[in-house]
Amino acid sequence: MIEVIALDGDDTLWHSEQLFVDTQARFRELVAPYVDVDEAHLDALLLEVERRNLPTFGYGVKAFTLSLVETAIEVTDGDIPASRLQAILDLGRVLMDHPVQLLDGVTEAVDALTDRYRVMIITKGDLLHQESKIARSGLDHLLWQAEVVSEKDERTYRRILERHGIDPATFVMVGNSVRSDVLPVLALGGHAVHIPYHVTWALEEVEPDPDRAFAVLGSIRELPDHIQALNREGPCPS
Amino acid sequence: MIEVIALDGDDTLWHSEQLFVDTQARFRELVAPYVDVDEAHLDALLLEVERRNLPTFGYGVKAFTLSLVETAIEVTDGDIPASRLQAILDLGRVLMDHPVQLLDGVTEAVDALTDRYRVMIITKGDLLHQESKIARSGLDHLLWQAEVVSEKDERTYRRILERHGIDPATFVMVGNSVRSDVLPVLALGGHAVHIPYHVTWALEEVEPDPDRAFAVLGSIRELPDHIQALNREGPCPS
Repeated sequence: MIEVIALDGDDTLWHSEQLFVDTQARFRELVAPYVDVDEAHLDALLLEVERRNLPTFGYGVKAFTLSLVETAIEVTDGDIPASRLQAILDLGRVLMDHPVQLLDGVTEAVDALTDRYRVMIITKGDLLHQESKIARSGLDHLLWQAEVVSEKDERTYRRILERHGIDPATFVMVGNSVRSDVLPVLALGGHAVHIPYHVTWALEEVEPDPDRAFAVLGSIRELPDHIQALNREGPCPS
Repeated sequence: MIEVIALDGDDTLWHSEQLFVDTQARFRELVAPYVDVDEAHLDALLLEVERRNLPTFGYGVKAFTLSLVETAIEVTDGDIPASRLQAILDLGRVLMDHPVQLLDGVTEAVDALTDRYRVMIITKGDLLHQESKIARSGLDHLLWQAEVVSEKDERTYRRILERHGIDPATFVMVGNSVRSDVLPVLALGGHAVHIPYHVTWALEEVEPDPDRAFAVLGSIRELPDHIQALNREGPCPS
């Protein structure tokens, strides 16, 4: 029987990756006058810098902004003027301050779920930024717990389950990333639901694995019924 | 009776502010050839930028690095070459990767405390960086809990006490910052111990308040005896 439902934040409850994609387009415009590389090459270099910085700087807007500045310097061989780099820094600030835009149906779904289950958020990225987004989402009064983590791997989920005394068999993680929201939770004996977002960050992509079966929903609107169905299939409560 | 001892991380368990001070000296050297301002003015401007960025970027090395780059651009009116800004970005990376240097007597003190009490860390800053420092400190196997927070105010401490079911009367917070480690905990009815570090970041400074009395120790070595004395003064356990 499912008792605890954990929801990812970025691209599951509120829009995020699209904002990064839009920021990256603006970044290309800012850098373009100073270098003769095509769009694809610049994107590939940024991804390489992000991948290189990930172990040190982690996820989130601050790490992304540092990687943007570094990429701009690297790709222009230091020829980009400092004023342009300031404009790139400002892109990061705009991302941080951007209003939280909930995905369609989120409030209704979370509201319906909290009638029957304990609902929590498990999200990764900048601590302050994620806390601020949770607060601004208007969902926080519905939540049992909120956890901001630096990585979503088995170790992290095990720690969260232990901390809150949750049996993995009663736990379902719901999110847009197979790598971060689905696979590590299945490995611990928990349940997982994948709700794809229309765009996935390259560093979140995984190869499909036919041995790993999990539910895929088209929208969070379908989640309450899906969880109810899961519980009907399980052993009867009494 | 004290049951739970919470320790701050930066400048209580391991050196931190001195590394920022050293980095700032290196920053001044990198900027100096491009601008005609004295050391004090440059420090004041950096502090102003840090203060301005704090609500958006929060605490920690990534926010500090972004503020360094921004200050360098601002103070030179955009005249600093991008290659210098890359060197400033690299200062941030060095700070992130710097080995964890425990203060004298930390391991012995924590070891002694864990014999009798539940010991936790409550630290603020970059989530990934603080987790990494806790792991590299060699103390994590002694800890009951570790909490990385974005701000150390009454709201944060209240949430932590509730989450772990801790009665404030049984809780003592130990740290180098009166603003972050002492005052909010006293306000909640908890205990606090101040162990000053030899240098305090300007944004952590508070005016002395004669109405607020709390213990001040010269070193964490004195902490186990101090806690024992605190408990002797309280009601006898049986």
